[in-house]
Amino acid sequence: MRIAEILVESSPTPFWDILKQIGVDEATGILPRWYPDWRQWRSDNPWDYSSLSNYKRMIEEAGFKLTVIEDNPPMDKIIYGLPGKEEQLENVAKLIENMGKLKIPIWCYNWMPDGWLRTRTALRGRGGALTSGFDEEDLKEAPPPKLGKIDKATLWKNLREFLKFILPIAEDANVKLAIHPDDPPLDEVRGVARIMNTVEAFDKLIEEFPSEYNGITFDHSIFSLMTNDLVSVVRHFLEKKRIFFVHFREVIGNKSKFEEVFIDEGMTRQFEEMREYIKHGFYGPFRVDHTPTLLGDTMQLSVPGYSVLGRIHAIGYLQGLFRAAAESLGYYQ
Amino acid sequence: MRIAEILVESSPTPFWDILKQIGVDEATGILPRWYPDWRQWRSDNPWDYSSLSNYKRMIEEAGFKLTVIEDNPPMDKIIYGLPGKEEQLENVAKLIENMGKLKIPIWCYNWMPDGWLRTRTALRGRGGALTSGFDEEDLKEAPPPKLGKIDKATLWKNLREFLKFILPIAEDANVKLAIHPDDPPLDEVRGVARIMNTVEAFDKLIEEFPSEYNGITFDHSIFSLMTNDLVSVVRHFLEKKRIFFVHFREVIGNKSKFEEVFIDEGMTRQFEEMREYIKHGFYGPFRVDHTPTLLGDTMQLSVPGYSVLGRIHAIGYLQGLFRAAAESLGYYQ
Repeated sequence: MRIAEILVESSPTPFWDILKQIGVDEATGILPRWYPDWRQWRSDNPWDYSSLSNYKRMIEEAGFKLTVIEDNPPMDKIIYGLPGKEEQLENVAKLIENMGKLKIPIWCYNWMPDGWLRTRTALRGRGGALTSGFDEEDLKEAPPPKLGKIDKATLWKNLREFLKFILPIAEDANVKLAIHPDDPPLDEVRGVARIMNTVEAFDKLIEEFPSEYNGITFDHSIFSLMTNDLVSVVRHFLEKKRIFFVHFREVIGNKSKFEEVFIDEGMTRQFEEMREYIKHGFYGPFRVDHTPTLLGDTMQLSVPGYSVLGRIHAIGYLQGLFRAAAESLGYYQ
Repeated sequence: MRIAEILVESSPTPFWDILKQIGVDEATGILPRWYPDWRQWRSDNPWDYSSLSNYKRMIEEAGFKLTVIEDNPPMDKIIYGLPGKEEQLENVAKLIENMGKLKIPIWCYNWMPDGWLRTRTALRGRGGALTSGFDEEDLKEAPPPKLGKIDKATLWKNLREFLKFILPIAEDANVKLAIHPDDPPLDEVRGVARIMNTVEAFDKLIEEFPSEYNGITFDHSIFSLMTNDLVSVVRHFLEKKRIFFVHFREVIGNKSKFEEVFIDEGMTRQFEEMREYIKHGFYGPFRVDHTPTLLGDTMQLSVPGYSVLGRIHAIGYLQGLFRAAAESLGYYQ
C-alpha cells in the first residue's frame, strides 16, 4: 500500500529512517516555514520555488517521494472574503504552480475559518496513553475568534470564488486539490459557520466543479461522524473518482463530543472500507492521523496526535488491514 | 484478539506499559532465572512454587494475565536420554504442577537437541533495519554440539517416554503442552537429528498421544517452510483442536536458507490463515516473534528479534489483520 506519512520536522530525524524501515516510501509534507538563516532573514516565502524545491530535495534525499502538501499560505482573508485576499490568492496560486513544476501531485487544504478544534489535549486513553478530544460544551462561553462570525452562505460564496480562481491553475499545473472536511463536522462553532461537514456538501462541491482536479481528503473519522454507513460513502466518492488522499484514525463519540482512540478501538467497518479502496484501484496515499501518545514516546511534537510510537503502531495496523483486504480480493494466492 | 506478548525482562519496564496501551492484556512469561539476592543465593529454583508465584504476581500487578510459560528447566539429558534425566524430569514435573496450582494454562516447549538456530544476527533488512537469518552453509564445518550426535529414532523414543511421563501430570494440573516446531525445520544439523519438522510428525504426535492436553505452538514461519499450503495446515490442526498458541512472524527463503523480514513483507496468505483461527473459535493467545530491530530501537535485548519498536509495529499489524478477518466473518456490522 502507499502510505504518505506526514513529516512535520524541519530536517531529517531518526523517525524518518524508522518510517522507511517499516515500509513507508512516500511523504506528506508541510511548508518549510522555518528560517534558513538564524538572523530570521529569508529571501523567499515558504511556498516560493526555491524554498519548496529545497524542501522537496531534502525529503527525497531521505528516501521519500513527496506526494502531498498538507499546508497552505495564509488563507483567512480568502475564507472570510476580506480586503487583502488578493495577495493571499496570489500566494496560493504560486504554491500550486510551484508544486506543479516540482511534480508534487496533491494539495490538501480545508475551508474552516477557525481551523480544526480539540478542547481536550491531555485525556487518558487505554492504558493511560495521552489522547485528545472535543466537547462542544467546553466552548459554550467562548466568544468568536479574531476575525469574527461568518455564515454559511458567505463561506459557500467565497469557496466558489476561490475554486473558480484556483482550479484552472491547478489543472494547468497538474496538481489535485483535496479538500479536507471540517473537523469536527459541526454546523457552527463559536458563531462561526462550517460548510464541509456533510456528505451532501461534498456532493455539491463535486457537482458544481466537476473538474477531475477537484476532490477530497477522505478523513475516515470525520466522515464516520457524518454517516451511519461509512462504507457506502467511501464507495460513492470512489465511484466519482474524487478521493485523492486518505486520513485514517478512529474516534468514539459523536460530532459534538468525541475522543480520539487507538486505531484498533474504533467500531467502523474498516475492512470493508479498505476493500472499497482496492476494488476501485485506489492504493493510496494514506496516512495515519491523531494517534495516542504512548509512555516514553520519543518525540511528542507540539501538535497532539503526532508522536513516534503511536504512529508506528497505527502504521502497522493499517498495513495489516490493507494486506487482509488485498488478499481477500485475490492477491497473495 | 488475545495477544500474549513475551516478557523477558526481570522487572516491569516502560515497554510493559506501552504493551498495555496498544492493547496487549496477556503475557507469555519465561522462568524467573535471575537471583532474588545479589549474593546470588536462592532457596528455590525458578520453577518452584515460590519463584513462580512471585513472578506471576509481578506480571499481574503490571496488568497482564500470565497465559503461557515459554521456557523450561534444563531438558538436555531428557532429550538425549542420558543419566541425570530423572532429576530433569522431576523438575519439569514440578514446573507443570506449579503452573497448574497458579492457573497458568499453557506450556510452550520444544524437542530440539541443539535449540533454535540462526547463523546471521546482523543482517540488514528493509531500510537498514537489523535482522537475522539462517544459512545451512554457514554450519558445514561445524562439529556436533556438546552432547554430540543423536538420531531420529532416539529422539522419537525419548519424546514418547517424556510424554508418557509428563502428559498425565499435565492433565491433572490442567496445563496444556504446546510443542514448538524445530527452527529451522531441517532433518539434521551438525549431525544432530530433528524430528518436529514436518506436518506428518505433528500428526503422528497427536495420534500417538490423543490427549487434549497434547498440542502445538503453531509458529507461522516455521510451518510456512514445511508446506506450500499453510492455510490448509492451520485448518487441519484447528479441526483437531490441537493449536494452543501461535507465534506470528515472516521469513523469506527456504528451510536451508532464510531471512527474517518485516511482518508485512511476507508472501503467505495471512488473511485466510487468520480467518481459519476465528472460524474455529481460536482467538489466541498469539504473539509476534523475531521482528527486525529499528533505528534507535529503545531496548534491543540479548536475543535477536525482541526489540521494542519492531514489536510495536508488528503487534499493530497483527491487530489490523485480525480485525479485518473478524469483520469479514460478520463482526463489526
